[in-house]
Amino acid sequence: MLTKRIKRLSPYVPGEQPQDRSYIKLNTNENPYPPTPLIEPFLKSFDIERLRLYPDPLFGTLRKAISKRYNIDISQVFVGNGSDEVLAFAFYAFFDSVRGNLIFPEFSYSFYPVYCDFYGIEYRKIPLTENFTIDINDYLVEESSCGVVFPNPNAPTGILLPLEKVTALMEHYPADRVVIIDEAYVDFGGESAISLIERFKNLLIIRTFSKSMSLAALRLGFAMGDEGLINALFAVKDSFNSYPADLIAQRIGEIAINDTAYYQAITQKIINNREFLSKALKDLGWHVLPSKANFIFAGKKGLKGEAIYKGLKEEGILVRHFNTEGIQNFVRITIGTDEEIKTLIASIQRLF
Amino acid sequence: MLTKRIKRLSPYVPGEQPQDRSYIKLNTNENPYPPTPLIEPFLKSFDIERLRLYPDPLFGTLRKAISKRYNIDISQVFVGNGSDEVLAFAFYAFFDSVRGNLIFPEFSYSFYPVYCDFYGIEYRKIPLTENFTIDINDYLVEESSCGVVFPNPNAPTGILLPLEKVTALMEHYPADRVVIIDEAYVDFGGESAISLIERFKNLLIIRTFSKSMSLAALRLGFAMGDEGLINALFAVKDSFNSYPADLIAQRIGEIAINDTAYYQAITQKIINNREFLSKALKDLGWHVLPSKANFIFAGKKGLKGEAIYKGLKEEGILVRHFNTEGIQNFVRITIGTDEEIKTLIASIQRLF
Repeated sequence: MLTKRIKRLSPYVPGEQPQDRSYIKLNTNENPYPPTPLIEPFLKSFDIERLRLYPDPLFGTLRKAISKRYNIDISQVFVGNGSDEVLAFAFYAFFDSVRGNLIFPEFSYSFYPVYCDFYGIEYRKIPLTENFTIDINDYLVEESSCGVVFPNPNAPTGILLPLEKVTALMEHYPADRVVIIDEAYVDFGGESAISLIERFKNLLIIRTFSKSMSLAALRLGFAMGDEGLINALFAVKDSFNSYPADLIAQRIGEIAINDTAYYQAITQKIINNREFLSKALKDLGWHVLPSKANFIFAGKKGLKGEAIYKGLKEEGILVRHFNTEGIQNFVRITIGTDEEIKTLIASIQRLF
Repeated sequence: MLTKRIKRLSPYVPGEQPQDRSYIKLNTNENPYPPTPLIEPFLKSFDIERLRLYPDPLFGTLRKAISKRYNIDISQVFVGNGSDEVLAFAFYAFFDSVRGNLIFPEFSYSFYPVYCDFYGIEYRKIPLTENFTIDINDYLVEESSCGVVFPNPNAPTGILLPLEKVTALMEHYPADRVVIIDEAYVDFGGESAISLIERFKNLLIIRTFSKSMSLAALRLGFAMGDEGLINALFAVKDSFNSYPADLIAQRIGEIAINDTAYYQAITQKIINNREFLSKALKDLGWHVLPSKANFIFAGKKGLKGEAIYKGLKEEGILVRHFNTEGIQNFVRITIGTDEEIKTLIASIQRLF
């Protein structure tokens, strides 16, 4: 009864959410701090009668708030149901294999190959350097590609590609093919490429409300780029699901995007905790990649990543392990609160 | 910069939402009554800290509530971001043109051909009878088809295909091809085909929270069918957007699905208003199709549908007109409150 196209799917597997006991959840890059307290009075005074009407399919006020926040035009902003949906729409709109494979880093967000299988887009994974960094020269080789996508900072490594390298990539990459930079983690110390979207009409930046905004429960993501790219995303949305982000989510998104002071404060705490944890692990002889995200990628010589993951799980701490050749000796640890980090360090000292 | 596949899109156009003045909105089949008042205390006491964590990608408690409500197993329930997303996933999972065109009624939900274009599925529209009803024999002709989809009650006609006809269709349609019945409007007097899903493993029923549940702002839809079909929908979801329905929407959905008494009461009011409006228009010499939905499809000899639409819009009343050969002399009127209906009738008496 199923179509042929469904048979090529190998669905994305998100981090586990076990219910058998309570865990310190350092496995899905959620924010350890609550979202802006301004959401509470909004929910308390929300007129539920409004729920009977469809939400604005153009996300007018939320897109306006985003455009103000990043000093761009509303025509350069698209909003969707989580950055995963925005990515899915973007793959449909911009990538096919007619002009070559889609290219992305070998170790990267594992949803990218899933989208490729979903749409039948051929892809090629580009190895990282031995330091796990992206070398833009590898993306500029003569062999043709239909587009580029990568997270910046990258996941699961946490390593940032500096803006000058991003600029150099854009300067040398064919102007008629789209480059997507997935800035899910950029607020934790990265430098955004937003300043480049006026200059490069083929650059699309994708963001999420799930990480730095602490709103993973709400499913809001957005894209920023030239109006031509944004219009194409709207055409895809209106051919798939015309009202993807609900009214309450849109309103809360607006409240969050406007409360920069609150978010700068919690982001700084996360950055401080990341540096504290990185130093503590290094002091214990661990190898920690230099992260600009809200997680670190770390391991210890002689220890398998799976053993770290399992040992910590027994202690009630969840971290993420990828059973993938080349990174199987690492674990990805989301930055939690001070207390969670201290508990983690104590467990690591005891176990390994 | 765009892919070839995006060039075949002709996006769905939802009913207009003009902002120039305040209108009586009888054009998008929204519910005129608010959703259950139990939502208000939920929102007032909601712990916003919970927003920092991802929602349950399996929609456990909401699917459980739906399965209890309809007396089926949780494995027979899928939830998505509006019934439009559920439909989009179902088209991907079940329809291709390898075994023939997808077939659906000529006058029907105008998103169906859009999904076909989105995925490259060929389709054939089956004419309605001269009374605008679906004749199931037209769907059982020898010519092969890869599947069937139709709304029941149909839109924009509002006409119900009785359960015995649905059963006869299922009995004669090939068991290895999927039939989707879109029951968006069934609560307004139709008889659901849920009782058939145990018997027909190829029957998928799709529902929405937007109409009878009065939650259009929230974007919740669901599907009911054999576990095999439901698992396929999950495989598509997990290859596209793994967390499509947000936590607040999931919780409100649960509250709504459990408050049957409240919803029966407002549904009965809408049914009463529908019958009142239908009779009033017939008394004025209008032709009104027999509706089991929360809208009617009506026209008057000698009047163009567009003239009715424009005349009413000037009066501050929005109804929907489809500029489509064969139905261009009708308008679709959503059933509003008693007061809205009386205002509408007064305008019609004055204008036409």
